[in-house]
Amino acid sequence: MASSVGINGYSAVTRVLFCGHYWPASTIYTKEYLQKYPFIQVDEVGLEHVPDVIQNYHICVVKNKCIDSDIIAKATKMKIIMQYGVGLEGVDINAATEHKIKVARIPGSTTGNATACAEMAIYLTLGVLRKQKEMNAAVIRKDLGLPVGETIFGKTILILGFGAIGMEIAKRLRPFGVKILATKRNWSSNTASCDLDGLVDKKGGPEDMYELAREADIVITCMTLNNESVGIVNHKFLSTLKKGSYLINIARGRLLDYTAVFNHLESGHLGGLGIDVAWTEPFDPEDPILKFPNVIITPHIAGITEYSYRTMAKVVGDVALKLHAGEPFNEVEFVN
Amino acid sequence: MASSVGINGYSAVTRVLFCGHYWPASTIYTKEYLQKYPFIQVDEVGLEHVPDVIQNYHICVVKNKCIDSDIIAKATKMKIIMQYGVGLEGVDINAATEHKIKVARIPGSTTGNATACAEMAIYLTLGVLRKQKEMNAAVIRKDLGLPVGETIFGKTILILGFGAIGMEIAKRLRPFGVKILATKRNWSSNTASCDLDGLVDKKGGPEDMYELAREADIVITCMTLNNESVGIVNHKFLSTLKKGSYLINIARGRLLDYTAVFNHLESGHLGGLGIDVAWTEPFDPEDPILKFPNVIITPHIAGITEYSYRTMAKVVGDVALKLHAGEPFNEVEFVN
Repeated sequence: MASSVGINGYSAVTRVLFCGHYWPASTIYTKEYLQKYPFIQVDEVGLEHVPDVIQNYHICVVKNKCIDSDIIAKATKMKIIMQYGVGLEGVDINAATEHKIKVARIPGSTTGNATACAEMAIYLTLGVLRKQKEMNAAVIRKDLGLPVGETIFGKTILILGFGAIGMEIAKRLRPFGVKILATKRNWSSNTASCDLDGLVDKKGGPEDMYELAREADIVITCMTLNNESVGIVNHKFLSTLKKGSYLINIARGRLLDYTAVFNHLESGHLGGLGIDVAWTEPFDPEDPILKFPNVIITPHIAGITEYSYRTMAKVVGDVALKLHAGEPFNEVEFVN
Repeated sequence: MASSVGINGYSAVTRVLFCGHYWPASTIYTKEYLQKYPFIQVDEVGLEHVPDVIQNYHICVVKNKCIDSDIIAKATKMKIIMQYGVGLEGVDINAATEHKIKVARIPGSTTGNATACAEMAIYLTLGVLRKQKEMNAAVIRKDLGLPVGETIFGKTILILGFGAIGMEIAKRLRPFGVKILATKRNWSSNTASCDLDGLVDKKGGPEDMYELAREADIVITCMTLNNESVGIVNHKFLSTLKKGSYLINIARGRLLDYTAVFNHLESGHLGGLGIDVAWTEPFDPEDPILKFPNVIITPHIAGITEYSYRTMAKVVGDVALKLHAGEPFNEVEFVN
């Protein structure tokens, strides 16, 4: 056991805890990045064991673990709770602040996460428009030239939540020949607003989402999940869409009201659904919503590419190294 | 039976033959477009019955039927043999010319065919890079955050055959953050060369394909199939690619040498294969090449979207109407 204390007042070993065994590459790549530094210890434990061991760790990478005030109270050595990505909806930030623990995300714009998510949004959009399940069935049936799909070309696309990911989606969709609508809480806060010229045809605040929905053929949700956005794609919103519109979600599952989405698929009002995220994760592959022929799902991998995951492993690794050395670090975005 | 002769010297009914039952929407949409014109008769017959009935028809839409000199010799009333799209590799054009039958394709740039094919090429590229089969397996297995995929971002893409489709692909891929290489027989012949500015980073002729292949991470084949291009993606070409490169084919199956592709998948030199077209069609879903986890196939639907198919139905319909009326028409591109 390392019991000596380093120059920075920490234990001679700085310990990083990865919560749960999903997204395994996050732990593997971070360990690989840190393999030359024996004074940084990276461990991954099952979600249910996190409360039992958290008191031993200085850094926690939450993944999909809910870090509530009870767990935070036990994390007596903890300095930083962070996400391997951007979503911090599972962390009780107020409790962390009370316990003087910093909470941080890795900004997607610098790691390739936003790029990877944007590409995945386009993959899901094309998969839904071209009827992925029917294409696969046609291959098995030895059919040809079926189904008749639709192009992105000519469509009006509403991006709900025009942050780093939304902007990357818009950049890529522009030459497909589309009209782009987008909502954002505060357009003037956009640090890269100079890049926005010509990207968005119609901008609105959250209050404009219903009006913009009337025009949209495809809706892509890219919002942060919080108390205001949970279930924001609800019956009222879906009913406002044109019949046959498509819905794509690469952000967080609970942005969508399950029952409302299910009912609008069943009625045919919604033309298709493509999701990388679900209401519970991992999602039950036998869930009735996946039985619709026009629904496709991927296993929460939008941000997970060789490039983004290696880059984020470097961020976590550098945070651990700098924390160990007592140096400041600016690779992450603190939220408290 | 209509036996009277119209003002243009044709039978009072102009008869259009669609060959075979694949790509069913081509016949259905053309019939719908022409439903108000009882003097145009549209029929679809099985591939094997084409030789028995072709003597009754003025227009033939070939689809995947091989129209050889024997069949052409029987087509005594035939005025136009055309494709519902661009590929005419199955038509004996010399025999048609001898029999004074015009052969025509529908240019992809005006019908949305090129647009639709370009979108499909991007779908297949993303599907291969993100490991579609492994994603689907992860969903079924209730896994999360697997597999680790790759982005288009940062890749060098070689487009073999920079025609209408290749250009639409390049336009769309440009903002993904890629380097684009392309080959074309005659760059100066490009009517839209003014659109090319900045689209292609490195241009070459067919003879440069090996040199360009050395740089490529992803190859997309968009060539016409002919005696020169058949099997052009062969052992020599594939060996020239970097290890782990990806191959996408949305043009014609026989551009690829099956054995060479199979062997390079087996050795791991080829990182993945995404094809909308195959060596025989419909392709055997049990073919060993489809068993590789990094191979995905779609049922020859790249050009088949609501928009492009309705547009092409209008072209075929207008050709029939104008032929019936004895008027000239320029909706198609004659190749003889």
